[in-house]
Amino acid sequence: MAVTSSLQTLTAEEVVARLRALRSRQPVKFWAFYSSQLGGIVTDPALMVVPFDDHMVHRGHGIFDTAAIEAGKIYDLEAHLDRFIRSARTSKLQIPARDEMRDIIVRTTGASGRREGSIRYWASAGPGSLGLTPAAGAEPGFFVMIFAGLAYPDTWYTQGLRVMTTTYPIKPPLYAVTKSTNYLPNVLMQMEALERGLDNGVFVDEAGNVGESSNMNVAFVGADGILKHPKFDHILSGCTSLRLLELAPALQTRNLIQGIQVCDIPVAEARAAHEMMLIGSSIKVAPVVEWDQRPIGDGKPGPVARALRELLTDDMRSARDRLIEVLY
Amino acid sequence: MAVTSSLQTLTAEEVVARLRALRSRQPVKFWAFYSSQLGGIVTDPALMVVPFDDHMVHRGHGIFDTAAIEAGKIYDLEAHLDRFIRSARTSKLQIPARDEMRDIIVRTTGASGRREGSIRYWASAGPGSLGLTPAAGAEPGFFVMIFAGLAYPDTWYTQGLRVMTTTYPIKPPLYAVTKSTNYLPNVLMQMEALERGLDNGVFVDEAGNVGESSNMNVAFVGADGILKHPKFDHILSGCTSLRLLELAPALQTRNLIQGIQVCDIPVAEARAAHEMMLIGSSIKVAPVVEWDQRPIGDGKPGPVARALRELLTDDMRSARDRLIEVLY
Repeated sequence: MAVTSSLQTLTAEEVVARLRALRSRQPVKFWAFYSSQLGGIVTDPALMVVPFDDHMVHRGHGIFDTAAIEAGKIYDLEAHLDRFIRSARTSKLQIPARDEMRDIIVRTTGASGRREGSIRYWASAGPGSLGLTPAAGAEPGFFVMIFAGLAYPDTWYTQGLRVMTTTYPIKPPLYAVTKSTNYLPNVLMQMEALERGLDNGVFVDEAGNVGESSNMNVAFVGADGILKHPKFDHILSGCTSLRLLELAPALQTRNLIQGIQVCDIPVAEARAAHEMMLIGSSIKVAPVVEWDQRPIGDGKPGPVARALRELLTDDMRSARDRLIEVLY
Repeated sequence: MAVTSSLQTLTAEEVVARLRALRSRQPVKFWAFYSSQLGGIVTDPALMVVPFDDHMVHRGHGIFDTAAIEAGKIYDLEAHLDRFIRSARTSKLQIPARDEMRDIIVRTTGASGRREGSIRYWASAGPGSLGLTPAAGAEPGFFVMIFAGLAYPDTWYTQGLRVMTTTYPIKPPLYAVTKSTNYLPNVLMQMEALERGLDNGVFVDEAGNVGESSNMNVAFVGADGILKHPKFDHILSGCTSLRLLELAPALQTRNLIQGIQVCDIPVAEARAAHEMMLIGSSIKVAPVVEWDQRPIGDGKPGPVARALRELLTDDMRSARDRLIEVLY
């Protein structure tokens, strides 16, 4: 075999220089990163690294969850921590005590100096081997990233999104309800939609019922005015969806909806909905106006999606029992 | 919230020191690591890192494959590269040209100085965001690790393994045939077996046919003397299994088996087998003597598993067209 060039063996200084060069070619908006492996916080994105042999990296033995920073406060962290703790159990991962995780998340947010943004945190099985089960003496990892949230186009809210039924199979329920880093199906679903000039995909389960989108829930308003959301037994329990289901009765009072149901939603019924929407902590609530090249309702954003988004925005600013103050 | 201690903000020097401390607490047997992101090789395990935001780390948008180093030569790399290239296609990942990958793998092996060991290599979607689809300007990653192969207990070969039907659902076929880093089901299957004092698990598909083990194939010898292997449409195409299916006719000549079939294998039929075995590039061929607390055959390692292992060992040493010489 032809030997065309030599592969350099790098020193620690060279490794850091290469990581900095990588960031200079592709700048990122990461403000602070906590790693239990490093035992502290880094604010230089070049230093936001993980050992390659951590089992989250090469086996997907990791979980995550999120939260939003809104006006210097963290919104609804406890609901997200509840789910994180459930994900750890189903994934057989060890995580720090809840108080310690909350403390680290709040402090890392403080260290970022950011009053608006996103928080994501992960637990990993730790490094030490390239095997399947955690390595002997592995120290489980806990990581927190404070970063600029995704900026979705305004047109998603003013004109609505266009989606497709993905050609990728939905995950078996046990894996779908766990927020693990095994997101290849979710990634491929979104890439497939983008390749076709669409905004996102929708999983349909084997029984022909609506599942979820790439990393968002899906909900509908039927011709009967009922707000319908798929059951959470085969999809992720979206914290934003769960909160909105609590807040939505206010729309019933205002006569915008006639009821609320969490139930199986056959695709045929879903296609006949007057409104369809995507829900998530990052996208909040966005109207879907086209699904598989067919219009939803009159093909325009509807009033319920808008009203739900307003309810959520208001809740994020004013729900005192769901806001944690950050000391900057 | 009580503030109990301060979280330190770390410098580059401190980060490297922490990574070294991690390795001193939990030593690893990694001899050389190539990273396209670093543009070279590192031999200090503390420097074997990846940016946390690489999509392989937090979304599982990565694939891998393996090869073995035997007496200073790399065995059957082309078959593994074939599969790696297929995995890249189904995962929508960009990888270097085949010749370049082979070149890097051979050179990294050379840099390790090791004449016996394991090679694993990965492709990733690259860093730059915490989103689902590859980030703007993302540079796909290619990584190679040269490491000490797993040392399986001798008793696996002399006394055989004990396995269980896993309680975890098998992956949908599209994801099962792709060697992605989404291995949580495989990890959980093995952890579950170890918790019960067993050696490994076996996936059974929805039709009730035998699938595969955690990261190994499964094969059987029936009462009729036929060597049977599950079809590769819903499980990973094991390179070792495929090679053994080519070599196995030699056992027919020696009257050790009466034929070879790749077919659906219903669990009931599999349980009645005279021999059961696990096959993989790391485990090679190991006899299973107990499955779900019931003996396989007479409950002792059988002659076909042993003969297949010998065929493979011989092939790894002597199949000239399947061996690549490493320049150390």
